[in-house]
Amino acid sequence: MAKQAALPDVDAHAGENRVFATQVCVRFGDCDPAGIVFYPRYFEMVNNLVEDWCAQGLGMSFREMHLERGLGLPTVQIDTSFVTPSELGEVLQAELRVLKLGGASVALAVRLAGPDGEDRVRASLVLVMMHLKERRAVRIPDALRARMAAFASAE
Amino acid sequence: MAKQAALPDVDAHAGENRVFATQVCVRFGDCDPAGIVFYPRYFEMVNNLVEDWCAQGLGMSFREMHLERGLGLPTVQIDTSFVTPSELGEVLQAELRVLKLGGASVALAVRLAGPDGEDRVRASLVLVMMHLKERRAVRIPDALRARMAAFASAE
Amino acid sequence: MAKQAALPDVDAHAGENRVFATQVCVRFGDCDPAGIVFYPRYFEMVNNLVEDWCAQGLGMSFREMHLERGLGLPTVQIDTSFVTPSELGEVLQAELRVLKLGGASVALAVRLAGPDGEDRVRASLVLVMMHLKERRAVRIPDALRARMAAFASAE
Amino acid sequence: MAKQAALPDVDAHAGENRVFATQVCVRFGDCDPAGIVFYPRYFEMVNNLVEDWCAQGLGMSFREMHLERGLGLPTVQIDTSFVTPSELGEVLQAELRVLKLGGASVALAVRLAGPDGEDRVRASLVLVMMHLKERRAVRIPDALRARMAAFASAE
Repeated sequence: MAKQAALPDVDAHAGENRVFATQVCVRFGDCDPAGIVFYPRYFEMVNNLVEDWCAQGLGMSFREMHLERGLGLPTVQIDTSFVTPSELGEVLQAELRVLKLGGASVALAVRLAGPDGEDRVRASLVLVMMHLKERRAVRIPDALRARMAAFASAE
Repeated sequence: MAKQAALPDVDAHAGENRVFATQVCVRFGDCDPAGIVFYPRYFEMVNNLVEDWCAQGLGMSFREMHLERGLGLPTVQIDTSFVTPSELGEVLQAELRVLKLGGASVALAVRLAGPDGEDRVRASLVLVMMHLKERRAVRIPDALRARMAAFASAE
Repeated sequence: MAKQAALPDVDAHAGENRVFATQVCVRFGDCDPAGIVFYPRYFEMVNNLVEDWCAQGLGMSFREMHLERGLGLPTVQIDTSFVTPSELGEVLQAELRVLKLGGASVALAVRLAGPDGEDRVRASLVLVMMHLKERRAVRIPDALRARMAAFASAE
Repeated sequence: MAKQAALPDVDAHAGENRVFATQVCVRFGDCDPAGIVFYPRYFEMVNNLVEDWCAQGLGMSFREMHLERGLGLPTVQIDTSFVTPSELGEVLQAELRVLKLGGASVALAVRLAGPDGEDRVRASLVLVMMHLKERRAVRIPDALRARMAAFASAE
């Protein structure tokens, strides 16, 4: 973690704080005729969470990643359980943990919880760092990898 | 406005503060292959702005409106200019003003501005209060109307 | 299968034809700044496939199910692999098979293939029949179950 | 129209056939908690109509336009009336006419009609041909312009 200590701005998340969390409001446009979240919309919430994690938790926004560095971080696998429906107007807690850090890939656990703290959605996903033009997997840059490691979780 | 003075919680917006404003982040999922916002997504931003205005500016969330009161506030007309494209990662300023307050309808002006303060999107829209089950227009409740009036703008 | 023979209109799919298939065009609005399908959009394609299967393959549209019968068929689990990216303008082959038919639930395998016949997306999902108002699982009606069985696959 | 006669493949649309039409199914994911189309979704239908018009009516797909020619056709203005709500499962008729053909721009009228032939949505929109990299308007290529002219409408 010595390396990480040299990185600016995100050290508050290092070490002990291993969960990246945000809040998500269930919008009118997220809900279906049954009045609950239309499940493809949950994946936009998950992608937004990953986007926020990169920008705020890892210090590299999708904009920087895609436009300046020519890299992408596509999701190649996602397994998802929709435990309980979510309703219009609810504010969900979204949490992200790193399960496994590979050479070019990172496995994440995501949880969306209701106002009562109970599970709404649980997902495990695998992202792979890609060189966008060459369309091949590339090793996650060391500085980014070190920051990701701070969100590693035993669970 | 005497009536409005009796309403709780939202009087900070009454009178002088006639613009309801929020911020909107341009997400990866909002952008098209040209790297700019896919225009149907702007309308979700506009709808989210109206939703936030109802909940935070008028004190009646879409949830309360739809589920408890059986009312809806559908958009029946919207004229929109896309002045300049918006890019991934930009934070837009979203502003809402009341242009005209009818019996069952309210006309709004919405503006999305870039980080430089310049226009990105300008829209004028008309919403109509509807009884959801009977599918007919109904007069906007007086308390709600009074709160809407606080956002009326000369412009 | 004697029971199924008595059902009207869908017998062309009975028995030997165990794959429900449609085609999906990759739209401009489905693609992200990297020019490939934004993965939450794949889940809309999957949901549309299930919707078409119910209407055309099983003879009970979502409209009939939701509005006339008060039933829903929410997805409670979906495991998905994004094998190869899909690009703007491609026409994908979407295929659905029944993996397992429970009391209130049905497990499906979905495959989206590219113009070359290779996998783009593979998903296995579990749907549960719900009584919408009471929000509880209910047994899949026998007629519907018999029709679902025609799409059962050994694979 | 002599010029147009020389263009391959799309002459069936030339002259008399001045309306480009497709059909759109109202999907579960298009509908909101009130059971009707969530209006931002209508704009995806409009964009899909324009996309189909380019590919099938004009003989230049968005894929060819964007990826091979480096051109885009963004919508810069759209005025829309939502006349009557559309419901889950309805099949809408989508129609497109050319109102005005400028140097770099084309003005279109779009109509979505219900199964009864009545208006659901009416929109007039302006598209501008852009050079994607240079982000500036460019003259619509003559061959494309000639094909567009075949959809010009007096109305």
